Amino acid sequence: MKTIDVCLSPELMHLYDVRARTVVVADVLRATSCMVTAFAHGVQSITPYSDLKECEATRSKGYITSGERDGQKVDGFDKGNSPFEYMGSDIRGKKIAFTTTNGTEAIHKAKGAKKLVVGSFLNLSSVAKDLSSGENSVLIVCAGWKGRVSLEDMLFAGALVEKLKNDFELDCDAPLAAQHLYNLARPDMLAFLGDSAHVKRLARLNIHKDIAFCLKEDQYPVVPCLVNGVLVA
Amino acid sequence: MKTIDVCLSPELMHLYDVRARTVVVADVLRATSCMVTAFAHGVQSITPYSDLKECEATRSKGYITSGERDGQKVDGFDKGNSPFEYMGSDIRGKKIAFTTTNGTEAIHKAKGAKKLVVGSFLNLSSVAKDLSSGENSVLIVCAGWKGRVSLEDMLFAGALVEKLKNDFELDCDAPLAAQHLYNLARPDMLAFLGDSAHVKRLARLNIHKDIAFCLKEDQYPVVPCLVNGVLVA
Repeated sequence: MKTIDVCLSPELMHLYDVRARTVVVADVLRATSCMVTAFAHGVQSITPYSDLKECEATRSKGYITSGERDGQKVDGFDKGNSPFEYMGSDIRGKKIAFTTTNGTEAIHKAKGAKKLVVGSFLNLSSVAKDLSSGENSVLIVCAGWKGRVSLEDMLFAGALVEKLKNDFELDCDAPLAAQHLYNLARPDMLAFLGDSAHVKRLARLNIHKDIAFCLKEDQYPVVPCLVNGVLVA
Repeated sequence: MKTIDVCLSPELMHLYDVRARTVVVADVLRATSCMVTAFAHGVQSITPYSDLKECEATRSKGYITSGERDGQKVDGFDKGNSPFEYMGSDIRGKKIAFTTTNGTEAIHKAKGAKKLVVGSFLNLSSVAKDLSSGENSVLIVCAGWKGRVSLEDMLFAGALVEKLKNDFELDCDAPLAAQHLYNLARPDMLAFLGDSAHVKRLARLNIHKDIAFCLKEDQYPVVPCLVNGVLVA
């Protein structure tokens, strides 16, 4: 039977052999939620960059530059890390170069995967369908915050485990823990996350609207997938 | 205010500066439960070893050798990793040299801490009292299983966070996640852990009695503490 596991921090990636697995990278607040939103609004591709300057340099090739560090938009970049910036017609058919504190780093660490897709609550059921119809075992990689675990990414991992529990075997404790937490939080995820470190951090930046939106399940039926280092729909 | 944090795997220790903190190492099933039991039964000291051979070599100096690898007692060692082996008068006043798959490794990684104590459900309240009366911020290090998180150590971390929530600030998500899981599991921890990877692994070794015992809170009022590389009561 296919197995499903959860890597709670990119700093634990070395414990997992991803060469035969589909990796789902989740940075729910807010990198992967932005990416999913962008694809739902017609973006052609998103190239993840770890390095700010490399990311910025793509502008001369016609890319839209998107960047966030410590929750704030990078000076001089076209767009930041709010999903509401990725809903307009200005991005249709365009290429985006994207760099964030945690999300793009997690994608880079998971590059050796057999298949890599981007997950968020916004495309939860579409990702679940893609995984259950595939042949690979699955590793969900939570981007977290600078190596530390974050509750919102654990909840997403738990939601995906909950959806896939009949098709996959859970053979480690991280998916169990995530599943329990999701089922506990499910009745009111926003309230549940009220005490979480990242939500408090973002609340200070006044982006309650972003947080509430990023926790909505199944808004967009897209599954961004990494092909030759570039995300496409 | 003092803070309390949880490191879910020894492989994440590099993210935490422990020089000003009290670190609590927990390997509930079963290394730290054995250690606590041994001190409650009059052991003089326990020296943790990462290396099997170094541990075995102490026998010539009069040590009792205790060792476990992959849940099984090491061939030729005096004792294994069941708390019931540490309840007899044969250990009173003796020195033990101890090596296990995860627990002793976690102690080694946390050696730079300002203070290091050993925790388990068996001495939960005594550890909590020690921490709340101290001045240091706290990091609970879950030994896990070969770098991966384990549910039973998360539950212990959650139990300790629950006891200390009024004296310490929780500023990261790992303590929150652990606390939620503990409160969920609390009514019947043994049943809750029934699906966990480590409990299944141990159940195959037929040590249900050990597991049930290791989940009992407050059996022994001891707080083993590392002094110059050696644990003493």
